[in-house]
Amino acid sequence: MLKFDVEKFMQDGKATYQLRDTIEKVVNKVFEVDFENVILTGVGGTIFEMKSVKDILKKYSDIDVKLVNAAEGLIKKPKNINDKTIVVTGSKSGDTIETVNFASWCKSVGARVISFTGENDNPLANASTYTVVSDIPGMENTYLKLYLFATYLLYKVGSFPEYERFADQMYYLHDNLARWRKEYNPIAKSIADRYALVPYQMWIGSGVVWGEIELFTTCILEEMQWMKTRAVHSADFFHGPLELVDDSFPIYLVKGEDEFRELDNRVERFLKKLNLNNVVVIDTKDFILENIDEEFRYILSPIIFNNITRGRLCYQFEAITNHDLDSRRYYRQFEY
Amino acid sequence: MLKFDVEKFMQDGKATYQLRDTIEKVVNKVFEVDFENVILTGVGGTIFEMKSVKDILKKYSDIDVKLVNAAEGLIKKPKNINDKTIVVTGSKSGDTIETVNFASWCKSVGARVISFTGENDNPLANASTYTVVSDIPGMENTYLKLYLFATYLLYKVGSFPEYERFADQMYYLHDNLARWRKEYNPIAKSIADRYALVPYQMWIGSGVVWGEIELFTTCILEEMQWMKTRAVHSADFFHGPLELVDDSFPIYLVKGEDEFRELDNRVERFLKKLNLNNVVVIDTKDFILENIDEEFRYILSPIIFNNITRGRLCYQFEAITNHDLDSRRYYRQFEY
Repeated sequence: MLKFDVEKFMQDGKATYQLRDTIEKVVNKVFEVDFENVILTGVGGTIFEMKSVKDILKKYSDIDVKLVNAAEGLIKKPKNINDKTIVVTGSKSGDTIETVNFASWCKSVGARVISFTGENDNPLANASTYTVVSDIPGMENTYLKLYLFATYLLYKVGSFPEYERFADQMYYLHDNLARWRKEYNPIAKSIADRYALVPYQMWIGSGVVWGEIELFTTCILEEMQWMKTRAVHSADFFHGPLELVDDSFPIYLVKGEDEFRELDNRVERFLKKLNLNNVVVIDTKDFILENIDEEFRYILSPIIFNNITRGRLCYQFEAITNHDLDSRRYYRQFEY
Repeated sequence: MLKFDVEKFMQDGKATYQLRDTIEKVVNKVFEVDFENVILTGVGGTIFEMKSVKDILKKYSDIDVKLVNAAEGLIKKPKNINDKTIVVTGSKSGDTIETVNFASWCKSVGARVISFTGENDNPLANASTYTVVSDIPGMENTYLKLYLFATYLLYKVGSFPEYERFADQMYYLHDNLARWRKEYNPIAKSIADRYALVPYQMWIGSGVVWGEIELFTTCILEEMQWMKTRAVHSADFFHGPLELVDDSFPIYLVKGEDEFRELDNRVERFLKKLNLNNVVVIDTKDFILENIDEEFRYILSPIIFNNITRGRLCYQFEAITNHDLDSRRYYRQFEY
């Protein structure tokens, strides 16, 4: 399958799963001293990933958790960050300037900073109180680490008694991911055949997958394919974007699995009334879990969406656009 | 001047200014019983307007204030809405379904709901505890009402001692707005001459004007002109959207006047390095206040931006696109 080395993929999955211990140890360390709130931070892809972490923490608990974009946080210096605060962030390179500087500031006001980063010794690691170090590629692995972290944190506050079972079952996550990639590959190819070269596309969705929709459209389609995209939250669709809709561009509707699915359903009903030819529905429910309990689908739905888009669709786009996913013309190419 | 009846505009301004008394009375009523938090809600344009209200309340006070999109709120039923909550919302027609239903739910759990709406007797008014009724058109008037409300609320909690002076000076707001419209009209025309027919445009900004940038791109350019636009927050620009940038489409950079201006400046420095020909900088600082103190520029900057875009630029676009700002093909045209 195009750009998919299944053996390497499974090895990376196992290596990530083995970080469970490290992650639990970091969380146990955090619990040695009381905390009152959790700040999830980063920029770009990291802040989009953290949106689902926030949703998961909020769904299962009353933990006071907020997202702060590091670029804004550096300016705002939020009053609710202090020595009772846990700050969670990440940067694989460890040198994302906004994240490093904001982490340093958080630490300087007494917050404990937990970073997910690629090395023991990089600017972000050095600005942090605790680190989870791993340079394993693949966003599915980033999510697996973050969700093990989030669910163990929930377990520790008494809000996720299912943790052991959830974490045990994550051993089987990559089997599922690899199978879904195989299943979705021909669908991804047919989507790319039809739409890889269009000048504009709209992606619509809501709920816990929304952050990943923003990530995919912004950090993958815009940054890596120079594709003009418009991500629309299902709650906003009927207040502006709907008037753009016709058959002249593809409309991707992502249906999630949480209570906000009814917002996606409303968009779907509207689009059906228009009898459009270019609507692509991606429903995370279509992907069957093996050896993982159904009740964990909510937590895993951003990984499902990521797995078939970042893991498949964008490679099929790349094959047609001939635009290398790894090339950048501006990003980190010079000082700005 | 194209679609600008200055006499009517000034009359509407005076009529809105006269609502000051009503607004103060509503806030005084609210203060008869303790409240612990404020929820700003609505959908579409209203939720975008409320973003600046949130920023203003947060800048001057420690009031616990949160935004909740009414469509999401109806599903989520946030736990922090109860009999200690003030809910603020608006809908001129008073029949925006998500807003009406969410306001009803908030009231049913004991919250006091304040609505800005067009009539005494419409679904939203009937679902509210207090109303500020006025059917005066013009978003500058919507903002004036909201900001008089917000600043008087701040005054009542002891966080905005400047209130009397601010509110008195709002008597002169429309003189300034009318003058700026006149000054900006030829600039708006030259922008429209050049860019009204482009297939895609990007709008970038941050801070207290960000909500109004989202409103203008979504509810005006997309909904009323069917123009494909991408609104990018300056904090996100360097993590995806920057790779799209070249001379093939216009890039509008909105520079605000608060502490986040440095994020806009960073984007501007980057764009300058690329020597692009299609960058339009809109700086709210360029508009000089008369009879209103400089210290109030922060609060007024979303109105400044709205005044020259919704008040001028979109009419100049309309004149070239021949796309009537009032026509809709889907919105409220049938059940969905």
